[in-house]
Amino acid sequence: MAAEGESPGRVVTAAILVIGDEILSGRTKDKNIGYIAEYLTNIGIDLREVRVVPDVEEEIVAALDALRARYDYVVTTGGIGPTHDDITADAVARAFGVPIGEDPRIIALMMERYPPADLTPARRRMARIPAGAELIVNPISTAPGFCIGNVFVLAGVPSVMQAMLDYAVKSMKTGAAMAVETIEAGTIPEGRYGDALGAIAKASPDVLIGSYPSFKDGRLTNQIVVRGKDAAAVAAAREAVEAMLAAMRSKPL
Amino acid sequence: MAAEGESPGRVVTAAILVIGDEILSGRTKDKNIGYIAEYLTNIGIDLREVRVVPDVEEEIVAALDALRARYDYVVTTGGIGPTHDDITADAVARAFGVPIGEDPRIIALMMERYPPADLTPARRRMARIPAGAELIVNPISTAPGFCIGNVFVLAGVPSVMQAMLDYAVKSMKTGAAMAVETIEAGTIPEGRYGDALGAIAKASPDVLIGSYPSFKDGRLTNQIVVRGKDAAAVAAAREAVEAMLAAMRSKPL
Repeated sequence: MAAEGESPGRVVTAAILVIGDEILSGRTKDKNIGYIAEYLTNIGIDLREVRVVPDVEEEIVAALDALRARYDYVVTTGGIGPTHDDITADAVARAFGVPIGEDPRIIALMMERYPPADLTPARRRMARIPAGAELIVNPISTAPGFCIGNVFVLAGVPSVMQAMLDYAVKSMKTGAAMAVETIEAGTIPEGRYGDALGAIAKASPDVLIGSYPSFKDGRLTNQIVVRGKDAAAVAAAREAVEAMLAAMRSKPL
Repeated sequence: MAAEGESPGRVVTAAILVIGDEILSGRTKDKNIGYIAEYLTNIGIDLREVRVVPDVEEEIVAALDALRARYDYVVTTGGIGPTHDDITADAVARAFGVPIGEDPRIIALMMERYPPADLTPARRRMARIPAGAELIVNPISTAPGFCIGNVFVLAGVPSVMQAMLDYAVKSMKTGAAMAVETIEAGTIPEGRYGDALGAIAKASPDVLIGSYPSFKDGRLTNQIVVRGKDAAAVAAAREAVEAMLAAMRSKPL
C-alpha cells in the first residue's frame, strides 16, 4: 500500500461494491455510494461502476472478481463486523485464493482496547483477514479495514467508512482531476435546448455534457454539467452552452 | 403488461439498474435505490442486486443482459429524457434486438401537451421506444416510461420515477412478503452478543438475521433484524433474540 501519487495524464478507474442485505431490503438507505463517488472524483479517480450484492459469499466473490479484473481499484463497504452475517473478509480471501486467519496486528490493537474477558470469539472474528492483506486504520471503533491487491475493504457505518477512506486513498494512484462546470438552465425546458445542446456535445468530443432536471418548488429546473480532463476544452464548451442559453432567454417562445 | 397478482409461496426476484454519469461522479446523490428497495420488499419482491453504470451504450446493454437473464424483473432509472445523453431506450432496444422508433401513442400524448412548434426533435426523442414496448404512464411530466419483456424503464427524477413505479408494479407478479422484526439491542456491543446471535442464526435456517450498528449521539447503537417468509419462524427467532438480550442486560459485564 505504498503511496503512488498523482500523474495528471493518467486515467485511473474504480468501482464500489456495497455488501449487505440491509441495503437491498431498503431497511438501510445507503449513504456511502454518493460520498465515495464525490470523493474519488475530486481526487481524479473515475468511478465507473457500482454494485450492491447480498450477504451471500458466492455473490460477493463473483462481483469482486468481475470488478477487480476490470478497474484499477475496488472499494467495498459493509460486512466486516463481528456478527455471523459479516462475511466480507472470507469472500475476499476466497476471491484472491489465499487463506484467512487471525492477524496478530489486529489482536494487538484489540487488546489495547478490551480487557481480556471482552475479547469474545465474535470480536476475534474482526481480526480474521486474508493472508497478505495490509491494514486500513480505523480511528473510530478499532477494528481495521484491509487492502489486498487492488481491493480496499471498508466498514459500512458511514462515519467509520469515511475515516477509513481517508486512510485508504493515501496508497491509491490518482489521475487528472475532472474539470467540472455547472450551468443553470433554470426553467428553460430540456426539450427546447436539447437539440442545440446535442450539437454542442457533438462538436466537443473531449468533454462530457449532461443535462439534469430536478423539481424545485414544484417546477422542473435544469442544470447542464460540462466535465472533462482538459480544462480548456471544458471552458470552451461552457461558453458555447452559455451562449446557447442566452440566445434562448432573449427569444422566449 | 397484464396484472399477474400475488402468489404467497412464490419467490419473485428483481434487480435495479441505475443509469447515469451524474451518480458515478457524485454530482447527484441517488435517492431511487432505497425507495425502490423498500417498495419492492413491501410487496413481496426480493431485490437481489443493484448496478450503477455510466451513460455508455455498451455498458448499459451488458448490465441489462446480465440482470434480465438472472432475475424476474429489472427496473431501470435514468436516461430517458430529451437530451443527447439520454440513451437508455436505444440501449434497451439493442439488448432485446428490436428496432427503435417514434411511438405514435407517445406523439399523441405530447401533442395534447405541446403546441406543434414546441414538438422539437429533442422532445420527439422521448417518443422513441423499442418496438413492442408497452407504456408506463407518467402523470407528472407526460413522457412515459416503458416496459419490454421483464425490463421496466423509469425516469431518474425521483418524483417522476415514483409515480411510474406505482403504475409499473401493477403488472408484476408478487411473492410472499417478508415478515420483518426489528429488535433494539441498544448499546450492548455487537462483539458481546455476536457469538450467541450466530448460534441463534444457525438454529434458525428459515430466517435471515442481521445485526446493524449505527452511530447515535456519538455512541454505537445496534439493531438486530429478523426477516423471513415464514412468520412463525420469524416470531420464534425474535423471541430467541430477545431472551438473549434480556439475559445480557440482567448480567452487565
